[in-house]
Amino acid sequence: MSYFDNNATTPLHPAAREALVQALEQGWANPSSPYRTSAQIRASMEKCRESIASTLRIDPEHLTFTSGATEANNSVFSSLAHTSPLGSRVLLSPYEHPSVTEAAQLWFPDRVDTLTAQQNGEIAMEELSDFLQKEQRPVLVAVMAASNESGVIQPWREVARLCQTHGVLYHCDSTQLPGKGSLHDLSLCSFFVTSAHKFGGPKGIGWLVGEGASSLLVGGEQEKGRRGGTENYPAIISACTAWESLSDFTLDSEHFSSMRNKFEKQMISEFPSIQVIGQEAPRLWNTSLFLLPNFENLRWVGKLDKLGFQISTGSACSTTKKGGSPIAQAMKLSPADSQHLLRVSSFHSHTAADWDDLFSAFRQAHLALTEESADSSVISF
Amino acid sequence: MSYFDNNATTPLHPAAREALVQALEQGWANPSSPYRTSAQIRASMEKCRESIASTLRIDPEHLTFTSGATEANNSVFSSLAHTSPLGSRVLLSPYEHPSVTEAAQLWFPDRVDTLTAQQNGEIAMEELSDFLQKEQRPVLVAVMAASNESGVIQPWREVARLCQTHGVLYHCDSTQLPGKGSLHDLSLCSFFVTSAHKFGGPKGIGWLVGEGASSLLVGGEQEKGRRGGTENYPAIISACTAWESLSDFTLDSEHFSSMRNKFEKQMISEFPSIQVIGQEAPRLWNTSLFLLPNFENLRWVGKLDKLGFQISTGSACSTTKKGGSPIAQAMKLSPADSQHLLRVSSFHSHTAADWDDLFSAFRQAHLALTEESADSSVISF
Repeated sequence: MSYFDNNATTPLHPAAREALVQALEQGWANPSSPYRTSAQIRASMEKCRESIASTLRIDPEHLTFTSGATEANNSVFSSLAHTSPLGSRVLLSPYEHPSVTEAAQLWFPDRVDTLTAQQNGEIAMEELSDFLQKEQRPVLVAVMAASNESGVIQPWREVARLCQTHGVLYHCDSTQLPGKGSLHDLSLCSFFVTSAHKFGGPKGIGWLVGEGASSLLVGGEQEKGRRGGTENYPAIISACTAWESLSDFTLDSEHFSSMRNKFEKQMISEFPSIQVIGQEAPRLWNTSLFLLPNFENLRWVGKLDKLGFQISTGSACSTTKKGGSPIAQAMKLSPADSQHLLRVSSFHSHTAADWDDLFSAFRQAHLALTEESADSSVISF
Repeated sequence: MSYFDNNATTPLHPAAREALVQALEQGWANPSSPYRTSAQIRASMEKCRESIASTLRIDPEHLTFTSGATEANNSVFSSLAHTSPLGSRVLLSPYEHPSVTEAAQLWFPDRVDTLTAQQNGEIAMEELSDFLQKEQRPVLVAVMAASNESGVIQPWREVARLCQTHGVLYHCDSTQLPGKGSLHDLSLCSFFVTSAHKFGGPKGIGWLVGEGASSLLVGGEQEKGRRGGTENYPAIISACTAWESLSDFTLDSEHFSSMRNKFEKQMISEFPSIQVIGQEAPRLWNTSLFLLPNFENLRWVGKLDKLGFQISTGSACSTTKKGGSPIAQAMKLSPADSQHLLRVSSFHSHTAADWDDLFSAFRQAHLALTEESADSSVISF
């Protein structure tokens, strides 16, 4: 397995693929139609909802299927803007995904506060606590569970408990968690979200969880009025199948992180000027975010790609973004520096040999890039 | 083919199915990632955009892929609410889909005007013209292309031209048009929308068209910043394949409507008290909406289902809606009366024999329902 960009998307799990293909044949009727086929599809869809809700220890009625985490993240802020008192503020971590940051800015213009980025990539609980004790405290706090870029796991359980104590809503963007970190206690959050294609499910499907939470897409009585639009049953059954495969999977994160850690050690020893972002913080076992000064990240990506390895320059959603990725902004990296960020992200099927192969490819790419660079300096003289 | 609920959804076209399954295998990478596979997927996605735009005679840059028509309809009103002067009003036809009506009410609360419902199911152009000459004219007019319920085709080209003359934005919910009516001149509309599963594509994908139009889902630089969220390439290539199959299809609407018309004649002769909604207006060739007093619609649906025919009580999105469907509201049907609406909607593969079989099934269902009714009255005495 030479695909190391699993925080961007994952290949479809074979069982999820089978469920999808079968539903395309037999489950294509509109789930809201009044005949028996549709009733069966509706029943199967509700079974999916119950199965997922049971893993999450939440009320199935609090789970709304959406087109993905972006819709779910947007919905939290849009709904809140309609129901909050005029002038309400929201408080974000500095590492949030653009679908959180931009939705917050859209629906709470000039009323978004951001916590300070710390050296290790985590938020500071004291600063959050101070915000919650202010006279005008935020109506909602958004701190992601784990960063799609650095893999740093935020102290989201503590955040959830602190927000509960202060009676403030807490939105947790938990998109990167399933399959990589413990989902236990997610029910402490007022809202949290999922995107199926991040854990072996299909694209275009995810869910929003929260008591009273509903999508910003209105029209139609689907999802008991919580989201308009024909229910995408083939994607739902496929996502649920991927989800259930995860639940079967006993996550030995120590085994997984030991492979990643060995790889990082090799990288540090090979490239002494390298920085591993968030190395001192708790992290997902699958992610390494490097600041690698030697060459521009796109050159590394291109060279590794030719060697058969797919890695990324950061999050896919901000690949073409001029302002730089959230982590680059949080770390106050210059535009030049942020062109040295490289992200490697594995998934369940990666073996120790795969990681070794990736390291060898990095060495080979480095040699090739150095040679090219020498050639071009020869030419330039 | 005994499935007669194609306005709710259509089976996946074989070529669209093949394209989807292939993309699940080979096109699952994130289209926004920086390596070659992703670049190829991105290029193929842009080819899809260009192919669709070319049929529609629009600039590809004006087409944004969305999760479907509901997202697209919602986006028109959400965007407009952000950019229109305070107090702006919008004007709707009385037949609009809930994803238009509810989005309008959400984003323009107490500032939604509705045209008068006419006996034949069309809007009155004079009334629209009067609205556009008012001192406070609407910032946007929304009149659907064709009704999902009655199949009545609104004079949308005239509406588009009139709105252009008055410098007012025109949103056309064209969801029911592809494969059933001419798409020519859709480019006259400021905004229009599509949902792929209404014409043989997969669920969870559609598009919003309009200069400067963007989805209400923000975050990420996908779709050149017009819509956040990982692009659903497998669904896009599948939708595009279904679309291209439509373009190959030389639509002989006269042939198609003659089959439907014969069926309606048979129904009228068999059930003299039946009403065909919108019979006097131009209609899609595939749709019949009946008001059939004999028994409640759900009993008809159930009986026909047992005979192997799927038809509907109205639009799937409002099957469980207490307020009744848009057409029931527009026609001011009592709750009791609206329980006598029955919709039949065919698609390309239906033959004259299929329509004949459907009519026979209606006769058989009627016999069975009459017998049941007689039995139950015997019991009740």
